[in-house]
Amino acid sequence: MIKSPICDLLGIRYPLFQGGMAWISDARLAAAVSNAGGLGLISAIQGGVEAVRREIRLCRSLTDKPFGVNIMLKAPDAADIASLVVEEGVRVVTTGAGSPAAFMPAWKEAGIIVVPVIPSVAYALKMQAVGADAVVAEGAESGGHIGELHTMALVPQVVDALDIPVLAAGGIFDGRAAAAAFMLGAVGVQVGTRFLVADECRVHEVYKDKLIAASDIGTMVTGRSLGDSVRCLKNPFAKKFFKMEYDPSVSAEEVRAFGTGSLHKAVFDGDFAGGSFLAGEVAGLVKERQSAAAIVEDIMGGAEKILTEKVKQILL
Amino acid sequence: MIKSPICDLLGIRYPLFQGGMAWISDARLAAAVSNAGGLGLISAIQGGVEAVRREIRLCRSLTDKPFGVNIMLKAPDAADIASLVVEEGVRVVTTGAGSPAAFMPAWKEAGIIVVPVIPSVAYALKMQAVGADAVVAEGAESGGHIGELHTMALVPQVVDALDIPVLAAGGIFDGRAAAAAFMLGAVGVQVGTRFLVADECRVHEVYKDKLIAASDIGTMVTGRSLGDSVRCLKNPFAKKFFKMEYDPSVSAEEVRAFGTGSLHKAVFDGDFAGGSFLAGEVAGLVKERQSAAAIVEDIMGGAEKILTEKVKQILL
Repeated sequence: MIKSPICDLLGIRYPLFQGGMAWISDARLAAAVSNAGGLGLISAIQGGVEAVRREIRLCRSLTDKPFGVNIMLKAPDAADIASLVVEEGVRVVTTGAGSPAAFMPAWKEAGIIVVPVIPSVAYALKMQAVGADAVVAEGAESGGHIGELHTMALVPQVVDALDIPVLAAGGIFDGRAAAAAFMLGAVGVQVGTRFLVADECRVHEVYKDKLIAASDIGTMVTGRSLGDSVRCLKNPFAKKFFKMEYDPSVSAEEVRAFGTGSLHKAVFDGDFAGGSFLAGEVAGLVKERQSAAAIVEDIMGGAEKILTEKVKQILL
Repeated sequence: MIKSPICDLLGIRYPLFQGGMAWISDARLAAAVSNAGGLGLISAIQGGVEAVRREIRLCRSLTDKPFGVNIMLKAPDAADIASLVVEEGVRVVTTGAGSPAAFMPAWKEAGIIVVPVIPSVAYALKMQAVGADAVVAEGAESGGHIGELHTMALVPQVVDALDIPVLAAGGIFDGRAAAAAFMLGAVGVQVGTRFLVADECRVHEVYKDKLIAASDIGTMVTGRSLGDSVRCLKNPFAKKFFKMEYDPSVSAEEVRAFGTGSLHKAVFDGDFAGGSFLAGEVAGLVKERQSAAAIVEDIMGGAEKILTEKVKQILL
């Protein structure tokens, strides 16, 4: 068994978070991951506060294990979601895209454990200063919105800078990368892309098929020129978006308008021509649909095996 | 002691290559690394074939240990360098930016061990097919010319695809990342950026000072729009280059002309305004000048310690 302070802090079996993916991570996926011993996370981007409330309540009916909610702080309804998690007795909140400072007094009063997702040392230090319990250092190998630094270089720098525990995200597909993350000083990992093909994941079957078909160079980054970098599958939408953003005759507003609704088209319609299929650099490793439980077991069982056997092979 | 098939193959003590950095990696640095038990590499970008010959001969006078030459295959004199390494009895060649297929018969005849540096699975497979003995899978955390994928996601995908040994490069600063690379399936690591501040490294003192002063977000990527991505310190030169490459009123030729000679200005003149100071994402971890031997010992001793102690801490 792998032991980690994050397991003690959260009351979970495995130090593995499932990423809180907008429109994707719902009660069913989160509960499946929590039931398998990890920490399931419901995204607060679900189409409004009441939709999120329903997912939280549904998740509670599906698992008696801890689960959390991921809040994108620049979302227009972030303050309402911040109150909702207190009302609904959510135990863990992860945050992205902004500072949760304004919400920390209420969250700490309610005993919520707060784990911001951060892309750099400066951001990590800010989060520690406002009272975060831990951070997820997310490398830009990840799918979706990304920063500039990548896991192998980011994690040790964040670990050196902070006193609170650090989890690693970005490029984590199986037990090899999870074991690597521990070597870098992380106390756990967050996995997003691989859960896209979980049986319990709501994304369209076309999304799953295209992810399984992708090669190692199957992703690209759009939006870098707009200060809003997003990693997704190299599909007609992404290539057109990329072309538009570097075309001086197209305004930033036109580019953004072109992108509006594209995640919906991917997740719900499976529209490969017009959708934004968020996916990380591990896309080439995704080969099959599996249950969330099988994914959790493969990553954590694999990490344990590698930490035990590989080390014996390497050390004379 | 860490054991690795790459040590047996090359007759070296530690599975650690020093990156062959253009204009930077000379006989003095390579010999210091080889004497410390790693594999020193002389860059073949030294200002002509005869300059490379002098460095090879000088290196042989400074060490009786194995060392190698890194050949950038798109350099105009690559074919001459390919003959030179045979003439001079060089034992190890690493290659970048192209295929060494045309040179493989002569190199294999001469008993040279060939280790291409590759950025993707497709490239790695090509190199295996033309007879490479091993590859260095280089993540785009690295300084200098880079690909698209990053170490945590790249290395496992290359390891899965190949039968020959894989070393990891990109984001490797200390024993933590070296231990992580082994978990990913690598049999060794290549380190560039950290050797820039080695006492035996020829770069200007300003280059060393600026690298030591850099933070985690101290590097950026220029040339992406030209299909020639280069990671370097965020300095006035890099910011201006970046601005020019995305300025529709500036032609690609003008941008390239602006970049000509910029590495020289960094390495030899320490011109922080006008030079291109190649550096990887680990820049923020570089804190002090050290001997090459101290760097090698810190990385490999650190890896051994982490593999031994960390694993005991983690496994129940």
